[in-house]
Amino acid sequence: MHRNLALHAPPKCSYYPRLTCQFMQLMKMTFNVTPLHDVVLPPLSSKVLKYLVLSQQVLPFLEELVRSKDKQKPLFISNLALDGKRLYSRGEPITVKAKTRLTGSVTFPFSKEAFNVGGGRVKTVYGEYEISLKEVSVLDETPSTSTRGNLRVSFLTPALLCSKIYLPPFLREKYRRKKIGFSLIPTPGLVVAYGYRQYLALLGKTDSYENDIKTFKLLVMANALSRVVGYRLYPETVVIGEDEKGRLRLTRGVKGWIEFDIVGKLKESAAKYLEVASFLGIGRSRGIGLGEVHFKMVERGENSH
Amino acid sequence: MHRNLALHAPPKCSYYPRLTCQFMQLMKMTFNVTPLHDVVLPPLSSKVLKYLVLSQQVLPFLEELVRSKDKQKPLFISNLALDGKRLYSRGEPITVKAKTRLTGSVTFPFSKEAFNVGGGRVKTVYGEYEISLKEVSVLDETPSTSTRGNLRVSFLTPALLCSKIYLPPFLREKYRRKKIGFSLIPTPGLVVAYGYRQYLALLGKTDSYENDIKTFKLLVMANALSRVVGYRLYPETVVIGEDEKGRLRLTRGVKGWIEFDIVGKLKESAAKYLEVASFLGIGRSRGIGLGEVHFKMVERGENSH
Repeated sequence: MHRNLALHAPPKCSYYPRLTCQFMQLMKMTFNVTPLHDVVLPPLSSKVLKYLVLSQQVLPFLEELVRSKDKQKPLFISNLALDGKRLYSRGEPITVKAKTRLTGSVTFPFSKEAFNVGGGRVKTVYGEYEISLKEVSVLDETPSTSTRGNLRVSFLTPALLCSKIYLPPFLREKYRRKKIGFSLIPTPGLVVAYGYRQYLALLGKTDSYENDIKTFKLLVMANALSRVVGYRLYPETVVIGEDEKGRLRLTRGVKGWIEFDIVGKLKESAAKYLEVASFLGIGRSRGIGLGEVHFKMVERGENSH
Repeated sequence: MHRNLALHAPPKCSYYPRLTCQFMQLMKMTFNVTPLHDVVLPPLSSKVLKYLVLSQQVLPFLEELVRSKDKQKPLFISNLALDGKRLYSRGEPITVKAKTRLTGSVTFPFSKEAFNVGGGRVKTVYGEYEISLKEVSVLDETPSTSTRGNLRVSFLTPALLCSKIYLPPFLREKYRRKKIGFSLIPTPGLVVAYGYRQYLALLGKTDSYENDIKTFKLLVMANALSRVVGYRLYPETVVIGEDEKGRLRLTRGVKGWIEFDIVGKLKESAAKYLEVASFLGIGRSRGIGLGEVHFKMVERGENSH
């Protein structure tokens, strides 16, 4: 599903205004982001890229999408990473030395405008940075070449997965006002169902009862027909900001990885939805880089202990 | 639900022959088991107690129940424990010095005969032991005094939980012959549903379509209405014996603990079913001490990190 940019067909549609189209292609642009001075990053370092988009210094055409309150919007802004490790606070300040090369990515609906990316020096409330394009990858609907082996999903930043996803659709209304909270335990069904919701959104299908039923069935079946091979999972508390009184606002999500196999045809669909998840993340607060996941097929047994 | 033995009412029924009764009371007898010489225990040390029952040296009236192939039979034979740590092999031999005091328990339907327990020196294919009664606890249907706080379930030995429990009952027949495997990820719903199956068995209800539906609904709702507070979970491979060629037979289950809360009335029922689980274990191979769980209510936040 990832293709080299040069080989890529022209975009089929854009997000605003939404045209009728089969599948909304996504692109993920990864940038080098290098602070010019020693900096203390915000607790969620994704705020740096978000600031750059909102101040129209990077990918200015995305401002409206970033500000939109739509659910399941096709947008992901990652936290900045140092050697692959995402930078966010669990209470401690995040300091980075001048000239340290960080990376960060933004995923959004395919757009030609994205190629007008300039780069160079940019200024934010979080300090000054040198920014340059590192990589572009594109997601379209073509299935992955192979679904041999096990499915492996890594949670690179805490994922906030709501327990309510388990609720049968006919009970949603009854429990609409009940606050339940997060399931910190990502079963195969839960992860695949979250990917599926993103996938449906890319097809322009959101918030219908029929889709809720499909999602519920998928969740149940992916749990029933999967065999978990291995995992390392742990809850992690993360700082998402401060309230008016200067107290830290915290939330708690799951990090780590899980490897599983699925019996039958469902495996191929699951892989497709997880591929979408690896572009858009899963769960709540994707717009600030939470729920970033990485998906790959692995040889049976590889890395599973 | 645990009561002091001396205060306890006379037994209401026994397992063989089964009388009509509301709820089958259980008793858990814990023994001190002290090897007289240095020993190498079998890979699953529960085999020692099992041997003693089968050879009618301990609780001889349980022989028939131990040999029975019934599903969900009201029997649990624990692995031997050293200072609370269950002894079983992950590949290495388990050696214990002479005179080391181990403990082990057997759970079974309440029976007066159990009080004729003698103790003293016993002989097994795994060496000679001194055995004495340490503790008796009884489970009846009286609800626990309080369900304040969070529910906390600890997996003391690897639990083998089948993914198929997630399958809606009307699809059971379709997938009857499909081998799927274990879910190594114990969600609140999965654990509560396993406890519920044991609970139903104690009411004399097994293997009906109606009960399968109830179990399925409970699983779904316990996942949908629960908030996971914390956990430490990890898969563990355990040796369960040898095949004819002397190769190790292995299986892989989950160990650790999970703490969660459940919204609404369901919490009280969940606690009741988990109490049953803490007497009878959950999942496959309970008869040899796998799936031993401990359940308690904890103050919110206690031990959750």
